[in-house]
Parts: sequence; C-alpha cells; structure tokens
Amino acid sequence: MNVVSLDKLFARLDECWAPKIVARINDMEVKIARLDGAFDWHSHPETEELFLVHRGKLTIHYRDHSVHLGAGDIHVVPKGAEHKPEANSPCEVVLLEPKGTRNTGDVQTARTRTAGDWT
Amino acid sequence: MNVVSLDKLFARLDECWAPKIVARINDMEVKIARLDGAFDWHSHPETEELFLVHRGKLTIHYRDHSVHLGAGDIHVVPKGAEHKPEANSPCEVVLLEPKGTRNTGDVQTARTRTAGDWT
Repeated sequence: MNVVSLDKLFARLDECWAPKIVARINDMEVKIARLDGAFDWHSHPETEELFLVHRGKLTIHYRDHSVHLGAGDIHVVPKGAEHKPEANSPCEVVLLEPKGTRNTGDVQTARTRTAGDWT
Repeated sequence: MNVVSLDKLFARLDECWAPKIVARINDMEVKIARLDGAFDWHSHPETEELFLVHRGKLTIHYRDHSVHLGAGDIHVVPKGAEHKPEANSPCEVVLLEPKGTRNTGDVQTARTRTAGDWT
C-alpha cells in the first residue's frame, strides 16, 4: 500500500531507454522511462501499450503518420502497430502494459532491456 | 490513435465524483474524476484500482490507516480492501481499473455512477 512519487523516481532515473517497474495493477505493470533520441521500430503483437508523458515532448511515429505528445498527454499504441518513439530532448514517460512486455516488442535489438523492478 | 490531453479534459469536467472514461488499454479503462469531500466506504472484490493524482491532494482511508497523495503520486488499492477517498479541496485524479468497474464497488449508494464515455 505504498505511495509512488513519480517525481522522486524520475529524479533517480538517469539512464535513458531503461524502463523501471514502479507499480503493478492486476496483471499490468506501470513503468517509467527516460527517453532521448529515436528508439527502434517495433510492435507488440499481443497487447496495446499506453504512454503518458510526465515531462518533455515525445513523438510516436507510425509507418504512415506520427502523433505528438506533451506533458499530461496520453496515447495508446494499438496492438500490433509498428511504432517508433522519438524524443528530441530528454522526455519522461509513464508506460502501462501487461507484465513481461518487452520494450522492443517483437524484435531483439541493442536497446532490448528487461525492466528493472523499482516497486 | 488519438492524443488524450488530461489538462483539456479536466478543464471540461466540472462535476465531482462523476468519472469519465478517457482511454482504454486492453480490458482496462483510464478514467478521470474530480473529487471534493469524502466519498463512500467501498471495496472492489474483483480487482485492484490505481489512483494517480493529477492536481491537488487526496487521502485514501483504510480501516486501519490512511495514505496521503499529492500531484504525481500513484497508489494502488488492493483487491477487496475497504477504502474511502477524501479530498479536503478539489482534486483531479486519473483512475485505472478493468472495464465496467463500478465507482462504489461492492455497494450501491447515492454516489454510484456509470462512467461517462469521453473517448
């Protein structure tokens, strides 16, 4: 029954593209990540993925368009949709996805990480 | 593939204790609500419930203790735990729970509401 302070946790998170699990609800994990630059194209064939921008700006590219998010904006990536997050400057995001979802989804890349457990 | 602006949606939400669905991910709903005063004691026997405070301060009382949340704080109410949210001044919260979860959980009260669909 803890209180999770996003500000305090982001202050501890200096590495980019290294998601940390900060809370769980049922079979879902709430993660935080610091993003900077362009990530790898990937999809999550089994699940949707929710982004909530905590601080900064984030673009999520799809093959045929892009969406632009600022602080306090939510976007849900459809199941199976190829996407590429990109931040032109450091951006803090809250992610929601089922337990065990891999950050690079259907592909293994140099950026593939197992999320750290900060709960 | 919409962008959901929490600030814009909260600006539209003048009623208290009247949750609105603003996004969906898999079988979960993301809701927003404005809270002011004390809610009714209830529990959700089938699910955990996530609170994220967007603006203001919120106390969640349990039968044997209370937790205090400010902006940017997350708290997950355990499945089946009796709880009573209380805000001493207007507070904006983001809620995450499975589709169809009733705001008053296991009890029907004057405050029971079907969440509006703002997606």
